[in-house]
Amino acid sequence: MIKVEQAIEIIEANSKKMPTKLISVRKALGYVLAEKIISPINMPPFRQSVMDGYAFTHSIRHQYDIVGISQAGDYSNIKLKSTEAIRIFTGAFVPDDADTVVMQEDVMANKDSILIAAMPEKLSNVRPKGEQIAKDDIVFEANTLLTPAAIGFLASLGITEVEVYKKPKVAILVTGNELIQPGKKLKKGKIFESNSIMLEAALQTIGIQKAKVYRVKDNLKATKKALKGILKKYDIVLISGGISVGDYDFVKEALLQNEVKELFYKINQKPGKPMFFGSKNDTLIFALPGNPASSLTNFYIYVLPAIKNRIGFSEIHKTKVVRKLNSEIKNDTGKTLFLKAKYDETNVTVLNGQSSAMLNTFAVANSLLIVPENIKEYKKGQLVTLLPI
Amino acid sequence: MIKVEQAIEIIEANSKKMPTKLISVRKALGYVLAEKIISPINMPPFRQSVMDGYAFTHSIRHQYDIVGISQAGDYSNIKLKSTEAIRIFTGAFVPDDADTVVMQEDVMANKDSILIAAMPEKLSNVRPKGEQIAKDDIVFEANTLLTPAAIGFLASLGITEVEVYKKPKVAILVTGNELIQPGKKLKKGKIFESNSIMLEAALQTIGIQKAKVYRVKDNLKATKKALKGILKKYDIVLISGGISVGDYDFVKEALLQNEVKELFYKINQKPGKPMFFGSKNDTLIFALPGNPASSLTNFYIYVLPAIKNRIGFSEIHKTKVVRKLNSEIKNDTGKTLFLKAKYDETNVTVLNGQSSAMLNTFAVANSLLIVPENIKEYKKGQLVTLLPI
Repeated sequence: MIKVEQAIEIIEANSKKMPTKLISVRKALGYVLAEKIISPINMPPFRQSVMDGYAFTHSIRHQYDIVGISQAGDYSNIKLKSTEAIRIFTGAFVPDDADTVVMQEDVMANKDSILIAAMPEKLSNVRPKGEQIAKDDIVFEANTLLTPAAIGFLASLGITEVEVYKKPKVAILVTGNELIQPGKKLKKGKIFESNSIMLEAALQTIGIQKAKVYRVKDNLKATKKALKGILKKYDIVLISGGISVGDYDFVKEALLQNEVKELFYKINQKPGKPMFFGSKNDTLIFALPGNPASSLTNFYIYVLPAIKNRIGFSEIHKTKVVRKLNSEIKNDTGKTLFLKAKYDETNVTVLNGQSSAMLNTFAVANSLLIVPENIKEYKKGQLVTLLPI
Repeated sequence: MIKVEQAIEIIEANSKKMPTKLISVRKALGYVLAEKIISPINMPPFRQSVMDGYAFTHSIRHQYDIVGISQAGDYSNIKLKSTEAIRIFTGAFVPDDADTVVMQEDVMANKDSILIAAMPEKLSNVRPKGEQIAKDDIVFEANTLLTPAAIGFLASLGITEVEVYKKPKVAILVTGNELIQPGKKLKKGKIFESNSIMLEAALQTIGIQKAKVYRVKDNLKATKKALKGILKKYDIVLISGGISVGDYDFVKEALLQNEVKELFYKINQKPGKPMFFGSKNDTLIFALPGNPASSLTNFYIYVLPAIKNRIGFSEIHKTKVVRKLNSEIKNDTGKTLFLKAKYDETNVTVLNGQSSAMLNTFAVANSLLIVPENIKEYKKGQLVTLLPI
């Protein structure tokens, strides 16, 4: 049995980066860059007007003749005398001879000329070429997550494809003779199988749309055979159930017989203690507890960061949140507790129904409150640490 | 010109709920329930053993004969005498005659009998029928967001389909003669069009995968005609650019001529002031500023909560975050500022490059720091409010 922190370290140390691929920027949301991106252009590519107004060369003059017009999208590099100005619009090209734009609200204009009522400072309202980024400058370092803003920025530089880390192929292997598929009739002694659909949904939150679900009966031969095929084809294997010490828990034995390297088994935590983590080649194997709430807890604490690590995230753990505790917590287990909790802007409430079987509590929780194994008690009003989920 | 708070209120008051549809629970991640869900079964459906061990009737006896076995998935409602126990595994059916399970670590067992070394309390390690939820109890109220845990819980009750609010159909109309599609050659005076791809990505974060992008030249006739078709077919219309007061900004006029009801125009904020919001029938129209960072700011502040409202979220605004400011902020604009910022567990840093054109800052930000219009100054070390993005 190892500590939570050790389990996190071991998983991190064994999570290799996925191979990379070229992807259309348009489809790249949620992927992570595998390359440094260099700007192919200056942005803006030319001196741009920031306002609707008039472009001219700054001087002591207040009156200028209007000799042309520059709309957004135009390129008319008109020659301007020191007595001349052009009508200009937001985003439009500023002629080389002009250095300043006066906003239209600050002039009196007729068809042919303007009188500037409030003279702007020299260079006002002109966005310099390359202000946002210069050609050949670094746009993004490798391992940048592609958010809507990052995707927009790449597009604004004319970049249409980038090299990213592939998403891992994930298999979910469900064990348990007691399980019946939802939609079928529930027989006596059986329960509905819900872990695969829950884990599929959890994987979707990190952009893995098509996890493949396998099911196997609780016996060593079937489990071993199923795993043999799965271990060859997938980058991450999640196994649901069959990993505690009951006489009918064959998963660990089936993994070892398939030459999976055991990296740890059992973590000093509640819920979620009976978990096995191993690897074979670059494939990571997480044998998660069968109880739904334990399974989902360990998905958030261990599996999600491992996936983020493999797909190139530079920050694989969510930023923790500190809140004031609404009640007191006792911990006489000597284990690290992960309690389903709900926090608002100032406080956190530990929810009723912390049993490892209870998913309903999880469904209304927005965080896991972490009580370290060496903490015997948190008092009401104390600041505690949460992992948002 | 209206205040930020007024704009938020007006949008909320005009955002009607979408129609509903039946959806497979397996595909329901991110949807919101349009109905109250009642449990069709008791969960667990029978008394379950919480441990691997032995089930018996609690008494002063310490020795019991083993007369059977109950594995997970079995249903053997064996008759037990007061001197008898059965071998039982986690999740298995507990016979009606037994009331207590002793964990296997607490007994000395041979093939035929056990001696209980540490007697558990009566009813120990037996999960009562319906402990998690009873038949006909409420599973979820309407307007519950379907998270991985909620989906798992529904599946565990055998529920395969639920009624949810439909996602809105969204059109993005891009205006601007200065725009060239990424991948094409950049001509003088032009810039690459990036707002549509950015907004598409932003919509994907709320589960709207297929926004339709339209493009139109900067003239009233073309804009009016394009809008006529779009307004009939979509639930939400985002328009990019053409909404400030320049002579070539035709969007507002084209909207009004299409009988769009103006609900507000211009907000007292920076960036993002020139925004139009209107409605026609149940369709909401957001004409966003053309500058990318302004556009994305207003997407997060106004469009995203409106979408959440339409698809049934009970909480449409993200929980705000309070952090200690790393620098000082001056606000002599009289406007509400939305500053791209990055926060960690304790502090927040305002990022360099707040210009409304600058998406690169947005790409590394994880929040918008809100400086209300009536605040002239925030001092270093002061607590400030952030909207996580």
